[in-house]
Amino acid sequence: MFGLIGKMRAKPGKRDDLLAILLRGTDKMPGCLNYIIAKDPADADAIWITEVWDSEASHKGSLSLPQVRAAITEAMPMIAGFDSATRTEPVGGFGLPREGAH
Amino acid sequence: MFGLIGKMRAKPGKRDDLLAILLRGTDKMPGCLNYIIAKDPADADAIWITEVWDSEASHKGSLSLPQVRAAITEAMPMIAGFDSATRTEPVGGFGLPREGAH
Repeated sequence: MFGLIGKMRAKPGKRDDLLAILLRGTDKMPGCLNYIIAKDPADADAIWITEVWDSEASHKGSLSLPQVRAAITEAMPMIAGFDSATRTEPVGGFGLPREGAH
Repeated sequence: MFGLIGKMRAKPGKRDDLLAILLRGTDKMPGCLNYIIAKDPADADAIWITEVWDSEASHKGSLSLPQVRAAITEAMPMIAGFDSATRTEPVGGFGLPREGAH
């Protein structure tokens, strides 16, 4: 499995608009096992995104999906940048599809 | 919802043993919506744990569950410390139980 933990920074006052776009774009991505979007309660412009994919190739492939490309285009003007992005290697836990966990 | 993103550090050489204990302890925790355990591919002793709970109270309550207390006791000698622990406020995404997502 391939994972990402990223901290995205919205432009001031744009976090809720950005969250709405992100929330629309998380369904029906092939190979996506988990994609959770969260506010940072201590940082008014920060969004945490934690992702699990069956492979890095599936993650890369998702960036070419029409709905993801549309979401990126719509979101881009509201994104100030990324504070951090960490690759992980998920090994299991609760909340993954059974065939993805081990 | 209540979330946590934590980076735990195993004592040198103990990551796999620690992962095995963590993986056993993630099932049947009331109010737990997501609990994913990952290796850090760039840091041989680091483990990332990303959690989503229906409430902070459920998270706190989990620490009193017999199986969690047993896992903590067993894991403690293998844990060097925590590099980071961030509270989040999950708002939705893919991979949460339907009643927990919105």
